[in-house]
Amino acid sequence: MEIDLIFLFEMVGTVAFAIAGALVGIMKKMDIFGIAMLGMITAVGGGVIRDLVLGRTPPVAFVHPVYAATAIVVAIIVFLPSVRTFAEHHQKGYYGIFRIMDAIGLGAFTVVGAEAAYSWLPAPNVFLAIFTGAVTGVGGGVLRDVLAGEVPYIFVKHFYACASILGAVAYCILRGLIANELAMILGVAVVVVLRLLAAHYRWTLPRP
Amino acid sequence: MEIDLIFLFEMVGTVAFAIAGALVGIMKKMDIFGIAMLGMITAVGGGVIRDLVLGRTPPVAFVHPVYAATAIVVAIIVFLPSVRTFAEHHQKGYYGIFRIMDAIGLGAFTVVGAEAAYSWLPAPNVFLAIFTGAVTGVGGGVLRDVLAGEVPYIFVKHFYACASILGAVAYCILRGLIANELAMILGVAVVVVLRLLAAHYRWTLPRP
Amino acid sequence: MEIDLIFLFEMVGTVAFAIAGALVGIMKKMDIFGIAMLGMITAVGGGVIRDLVLGRTPPVAFVHPVYAATAIVVAIIVFLPSVRTFAEHHQKGYYGIFRIMDAIGLGAFTVVGAEAAYSWLPAPNVFLAIFTGAVTGVGGGVLRDVLAGEVPYIFVKHFYACASILGAVAYCILRGLIANELAMILGVAVVVVLRLLAAHYRWTLPRP
Repeated sequence: MEIDLIFLFEMVGTVAFAIAGALVGIMKKMDIFGIAMLGMITAVGGGVIRDLVLGRTPPVAFVHPVYAATAIVVAIIVFLPSVRTFAEHHQKGYYGIFRIMDAIGLGAFTVVGAEAAYSWLPAPNVFLAIFTGAVTGVGGGVLRDVLAGEVPYIFVKHFYACASILGAVAYCILRGLIANELAMILGVAVVVVLRLLAAHYRWTLPRP
Repeated sequence: MEIDLIFLFEMVGTVAFAIAGALVGIMKKMDIFGIAMLGMITAVGGGVIRDLVLGRTPPVAFVHPVYAATAIVVAIIVFLPSVRTFAEHHQKGYYGIFRIMDAIGLGAFTVVGAEAAYSWLPAPNVFLAIFTGAVTGVGGGVLRDVLAGEVPYIFVKHFYACASILGAVAYCILRGLIANELAMILGVAVVVVLRLLAAHYRWTLPRP
Repeated sequence: MEIDLIFLFEMVGTVAFAIAGALVGIMKKMDIFGIAMLGMITAVGGGVIRDLVLGRTPPVAFVHPVYAATAIVVAIIVFLPSVRTFAEHHQKGYYGIFRIMDAIGLGAFTVVGAEAAYSWLPAPNVFLAIFTGAVTGVGGGVLRDVLAGEVPYIFVKHFYACASILGAVAYCILRGLIANELAMILGVAVVVVLRLLAAHYRWTLPRP
C-alpha cells in the first residue's frame, strides 16, 4: 500500500516533468527526438542522481523501463500539433502549463527522494533526507536547463529550490508524527503551493 | 580473446572521441590545455558515467591510465599545426573528420556500454543494457558540448541518439543469436552507418 | 591529528570555494538564494564527485551538514551589502578576491581528493590518486561555471587544471617521503602558487 503511493508519486512526477521538459524543447524549436530526450531526462534525471547519491546502482530508472517509456510517450503526446494548439489557446501559451507541471514534478520528486533516503539507508540523519529530497526534486530540472543551454531555474527564479527544501523539511518532520502516506501528500502540497505562490505573486529575494 | 575485442573497441572509441573533442576545442579557439582536457573528457566521459550507473567504482578510466593518456596524446597530435593544416586541406575543414570520428566513437562506446551491462551485472534485462549502451555512447559527447558551451548535439541533430539506441538494440538481439564478437562489430556498424547516413542525407524529424 | 588536518583543509576549501561561487553569482546578478545555492554547489560539488568516483555513498557532504551549512552561511555573508562594498573598494572589484579564493579552494580540494583515494581504497595506483585529486579540485568550479552559463574556467584559462594536476603529483610523490601533513601542505602550496603565478604573469599556452 505504502509502496503503491510512492510509485504513484513517481509516476505523477514523471508525467509532470516529462511535460515540462517537452515544453522547454518545443520552446527551443527542437525536433521530436530532442523533445522526447529532453522530456525523458527531465523526468528520470532527479531519480538517477538520487540513486547514485544513495549508492543504489543501477539506478531504478535503468532497471525498470516504465519511467523512461512513460516520459517518452508523454513528451511525444505533448509534441502532437493538436495538443500544442490546445495548449496555446487555453493557457496563455505554454508557460502557465509549464509552471504547474514543474511545480507538481518538483513536489513529487522531492518527497519521493526524501522517503528513499529513509527506506534505503539504515540510519539516515534528517539533513541527509532533506538534501537527498531537494537534489531529487531539482535535479531533473537542472539537467533540463543545462542541456537546453539555459542557466538553471534554481539560480534565477525566486524561491524555487527553497520550496523543495521546505517541502522536504515538512515531510521529514511530519513522517514521525502522522501516517507516512499523509506526510507525503502534505510534503508535496507544501512544495507545489509555495512554488506557485512565489511565481504568482513574484516573491522577490534581495539581489546585488 | 573476447576481452581483447572489447579493449580494442574501447581504444577505437577513445581515439575517435579524443579527436572529435579536440576538434571542438580547436573550433572554440581553446589553448592546448583546454583542447587536451576536452579531448580526454569526451573520450572517457561516457565510460565514467557507465561505470557510475553500473556501480563499478572507481570507474575503469580512473584505475587504468591508458584511456586518459591515449586521449591526451591524441588530442595534442590533433592540435599540431601540420596536422591541422592537413585536416583543413583534405576534408573541407574539420567538420567532415569530426563527423566520422564522432560516429565511430558513438558506435564503439554504445556497444561497449551495452556489453558491460551483461558482463558486470548478474541478470540485466535488455532495457537496462540498451539504456546503458546509449548513455555510454552519447555521454562523452554530451559532456563535451555542455563544457564547450553548446547545446548538446543529441538535442539538435537528427537521429543522433536514435542511432545509438538502434545500435544497442541490434547488439542486444544479435548477441543471443551469433558470436558476441560478431554481434559487437555489427552493432557498431549499425550506429556508424545510421549516424552518417542521417547526416549525409539530412534526415529530418518533425519540429514544432 | 591527521584527520584533523584533512578536516581543516576541507573547511578551508569549502569557505574559499563558497566565496568564489558566491562572487560569480553576484557578478551574474542572481538573487540571494541563487548565490547561496551556487556557493554551496561550488564548495561541495568536487567532494561529491570524488565520493561517487570512489564509491563512497552517500557522499560525505550529504551525511555531514557542516560543509553545506558553512558554504551557505559564507555565501550569505559575501552577499551582505557592507561586505560587497568593502570588496569593491579594496581589491579592484571582486576579481582579485575571486582568484585567490579559487586558488585556495583548488589547492585544498586537490590534496584532499588525492588523499581520499589513498585512505578509502585498499590499493590505489598513483594515477588514480592524481586523477581523483584533480577531479575533486576542479569539479566544484566546473559545476559552478556550467550552472552559471559559462564555459568552464579549465578550458579557457591558462594552466588551471595543470596546476591542480601538478599539485596532486607533488602530494603523491612527497607523501611517501615525508610526513603526510607536510606533504599535504606542500601540495596545496604548489597548486596555489602555480595558479596565481599563471594568472599574474598571464602564462600563455599555444592556441590554434
